[in-house]
Amino acid sequence: MANADCVSVRVFSLNCWGIHYLSKHCSQRYQMIGEMLCKEQHDIVLLQEVWSEKDFLYLKVKLASTHPHSHYFKSGVIGSGLAIFAKHRIHDTFLYRYSLNGYPYMAHHGDWFGGKAVGMAILNIAGLTVNVYVTHLHAEYSREKDSYLSHRVVQAWELQQFIRHTSTGADVVIVGGDLNMHPQDLGCRLLMSYTGLKDSYIETAKFDGCENGMTLIADNLFISKNELIPFEKGIRIDYILFKGSSTAKIYCDFMSTTKGSVPGHPLPYSDHEALTAELRLESHIPAQAGSDKTHDTPAEKLAELVDTLTEARTEVKVGLHCAERMRYTAARTGVMGLALLVLELAIAAVPCFALGAEQPFPRISFYLLAALCFAILLTTFLLYIFYTMELKSLQGAEDQMRLAVGSLQEKLRGFPVAQPNDAPQRSPEGQQPSALDPEE
Amino acid sequence: MANADCVSVRVFSLNCWGIHYLSKHCSQRYQMIGEMLCKEQHDIVLLQEVWSEKDFLYLKVKLASTHPHSHYFKSGVIGSGLAIFAKHRIHDTFLYRYSLNGYPYMAHHGDWFGGKAVGMAILNIAGLTVNVYVTHLHAEYSREKDSYLSHRVVQAWELQQFIRHTSTGADVVIVGGDLNMHPQDLGCRLLMSYTGLKDSYIETAKFDGCENGMTLIADNLFISKNELIPFEKGIRIDYILFKGSSTAKIYCDFMSTTKGSVPGHPLPYSDHEALTAELRLESHIPAQAGSDKTHDTPAEKLAELVDTLTEARTEVKVGLHCAERMRYTAARTGVMGLALLVLELAIAAVPCFALGAEQPFPRISFYLLAALCFAILLTTFLLYIFYTMELKSLQGAEDQMRLAVGSLQEKLRGFPVAQPNDAPQRSPEGQQPSALDPEE
Repeated sequence: MANADCVSVRVFSLNCWGIHYLSKHCSQRYQMIGEMLCKEQHDIVLLQEVWSEKDFLYLKVKLASTHPHSHYFKSGVIGSGLAIFAKHRIHDTFLYRYSLNGYPYMAHHGDWFGGKAVGMAILNIAGLTVNVYVTHLHAEYSREKDSYLSHRVVQAWELQQFIRHTSTGADVVIVGGDLNMHPQDLGCRLLMSYTGLKDSYIETAKFDGCENGMTLIADNLFISKNELIPFEKGIRIDYILFKGSSTAKIYCDFMSTTKGSVPGHPLPYSDHEALTAELRLESHIPAQAGSDKTHDTPAEKLAELVDTLTEARTEVKVGLHCAERMRYTAARTGVMGLALLVLELAIAAVPCFALGAEQPFPRISFYLLAALCFAILLTTFLLYIFYTMELKSLQGAEDQMRLAVGSLQEKLRGFPVAQPNDAPQRSPEGQQPSALDPEE
Repeated sequence: MANADCVSVRVFSLNCWGIHYLSKHCSQRYQMIGEMLCKEQHDIVLLQEVWSEKDFLYLKVKLASTHPHSHYFKSGVIGSGLAIFAKHRIHDTFLYRYSLNGYPYMAHHGDWFGGKAVGMAILNIAGLTVNVYVTHLHAEYSREKDSYLSHRVVQAWELQQFIRHTSTGADVVIVGGDLNMHPQDLGCRLLMSYTGLKDSYIETAKFDGCENGMTLIADNLFISKNELIPFEKGIRIDYILFKGSSTAKIYCDFMSTTKGSVPGHPLPYSDHEALTAELRLESHIPAQAGSDKTHDTPAEKLAELVDTLTEARTEVKVGLHCAERMRYTAARTGVMGLALLVLELAIAAVPCFALGAEQPFPRISFYLLAALCFAILLTTFLLYIFYTMELKSLQGAEDQMRLAVGSLQEKLRGFPVAQPNDAPQRSPEGQQPSALDPEE
C-alpha cells in the first residue's frame, strides 16, 4: 500500500471446478489453491464453483491469518458456488439470483441445481468504498447450437442491472468471475457498454499469461481438445473487470494468468486458468471523507438495529429448524417408500417370501402398491429438493445478517460515547451467543 | 408543482385484489379504479395484486393520457402482480424476486405461484432522481400460528437490502405496497431501521382516513370479521414510505385512506383500503445539476448501447418463442395423456367398448397404462409450470430492455450534435420496428 491517496489492490479470480467425485483431483487441487493463496496474499480472492461448503470452510481455516474476512453465497439446490476472501473487512453483502438458469431436467448440465447468481461484497479500502462482485453465468455447452443463449443473455442483462443499480454509491467497482462468454459475445458487450466496466486484460499496462488472455486452454491437462473446437488453442471466458468513479480513478498495472500445470506440481489449479490483476486506486477525495460515509447513523439507532437484527436472526433460525425438520420428514418418507418397494419386489421375485401356491398372485394390489411407492418416491424427491433450496436461502439470509451484525457492532465500538462492551450486551444474552462474533 | 426547488408529488398505493373468478366484482372494481385514477391524476400510482396482465393493459389504455408511463413487473408462474403508472418518464426498472415465498403445494394460499418480488422504477422529477419501489410480501394467514413468519422476515431483509443498495444514487426514495406486516412487526422494524425510511402515516402533517391508518378494516364489505380476529376494527399492513438524502428533503403534507365503500358506489375499490400521500420534495441542489446525472455518456456510446440492446432483445425474443413452443408441447402431451386416460377408463367402465366376454380383462396392461398416463400428466404439469415461469422471466427482461432502449433514445434525441432521427435509424431496420417506440 502506497500513500493515502494511492493504494494498490491485488485481485484474484478462479473457477475452482470443485465437483467432488466428478472433477479430477479435487481435494489435492484445493490444497494447492489454499497454499498458493496463503503465499500470494491477494487483497481480494473471488472463487467460483466452490460447490461444497466443506471446501469453503477448508479454505477459510487455511486462510484465517492472511484473509480473515470471507463470505460464501448460498443459493439454489447445491449452492451458487461463489465465495469471497478478503484481507479487508466485508461490511455488507447481497446476493442476486438470476431469474433464468437452464432447466432442472437437464441434470447432466447441472446449472439449474447450482442456482447461479451474482454476489456483492462492500469493502472499505483506504477510505474508499469498494463494491466487489463475483459471478458465474450459465455454461455454453455447444457454440453452434447454444440452447441456453437467451438464458445467458438475460443473466448478463440482470448482472449489468444489479451492478449498475447497486454501485451508485461506490468509489470503485471490481467484478470477477466466469462469464462463460467470449469478449465479443452479446452478453459481454451488453455488460461492458451498459456499466462502463473495463476489462483488465485490455487495460493492463503489463501482461504475463496465456496467449490472448485465454482462460480455458488446450494445454490444461483437464481440458479435452474436443471441447474447444473450433478454438484450437483456447478461449477467454473468465474476467476481472473494474470501474472508477468521480471520487476515485482505477488502473490496472499488471495482469497475469496461470498457464496450465503449476510449476513444481503435476497439476493445474483447475480446468480454468486463474487470473490475477494488480489494480491501482487513486482517491480524489480526502481519505477521511470517504470513510465518513459509514458513520452517519447515531449510536442509539445502531444499537437498536443490532437488536432488531438479532431478533430477525432468531426468527430465521426457527424457520431453518422447521425447514430442516420438513426435509428430514421428506427424506424419511422417501426411504420408507423405497423400502416398501424393495419388500414388494422381494415378495414377487423370491419364492420363499411368496404366498402359498394355492392362492393366486394378487396382481392388482401389487401394481397399485408399486404405483403408490413410485408416487411417494417422486413426491418426496421433489419436496427434498424444494426444502433444500429453502434451507439454502434461509442459511444465506442468516449468514448475511450475522455479517451485518458484526459490521454494525464494529461501528458501534468506534463511537467515542459508547463503552467498548456496551453494544454486544444489548443483544439478548445466551440466546444468540454467536451474534457477538460475526466471524464464528 | 411549485417552484424549481420545491415540488409536490402525489403517490397512490392499492392492493387491487385482482383474482378473477375468486375476487368479487373484479372487472367492476377495475373500472372504478381506472376512473378514479383518471380523475385524481396522482403523479405515481403503485398497484399490487394486478394478477392478470389484461387488467394492467385495461388500465394502461384507460390512463394513457393522464399516466403515459407505466411498467408491469413479471415474475413467478402467475406474475408478481406489481404495476406502476406515472406521469413522469420511467428511466429504468429492476425487479428483485424474493428467494423465499411460501410453498408450491400450499396452492390454496397461492403466494408461491405469484412470485412475490420488489419492483424498482427510476423517475426524474423536477431534476431529482426519484427511486420508486413497489412490493407485496407473503400474506399472514394466521397471526397465532404463522408458518410463513421466517419467509416474511427474509423477504423484509431482502427488501431492505435491495432498497438500501439500489438507492445510494437517488435523491429521494418512495416505497409503496402491501407489506402484510403490522407497524411493530419484526420485518417492519427491520426495514425501517435499516433503511431509514419514514412512514407517511406517522410523518404526515394532516391525515384523513381510517382510525389508526388501518388499511384492512371491518367496515369493508369484502372483509369477513373472522379474518381480523383479534383485531376487531382492522389492521394497518399497507404503507407509503419515503426517505430524502443529502441532496433533497422530503415531507408528507397530507395523507388519506379510503374508508370502505366508495361514495356514490355500492362497492369499495378492493378488500384493502387505498392510500394517498402528498409528498413535498425540497431540492438542495440546483435542478440542472440533478438532471445532469443522466447525461454523462457520449452520444456514440449511447447509440452503440442501443444497438447492443436491440440485439439482446432479439435474442431474448428467440428464447421466448422457444419457451412458448416447449410449453405448447408440454400442454399438448398433457392433453394426450388425459385423453388416453379417459379412453382407458371408458374401455373399462362402458360395456359397449369392452373386449369380448370370452377374453379376460387385461388388468396388468390396464394398470400399467393408467400409471403411465398419470406419470405423463404429472410431468407435463410440472413442465408447464416451469416453462410458464421461464416465459415470465424472459418477457420481464424483454419489457425492461424495451423500456431501457426508449429511455436511451430519448437521451440521444437530447444531444445537440445528433440529428433528431439519427439514433433510431441506427438500430437494424425491419427487424425490430417496435424498438423505435418504447411505449408500444
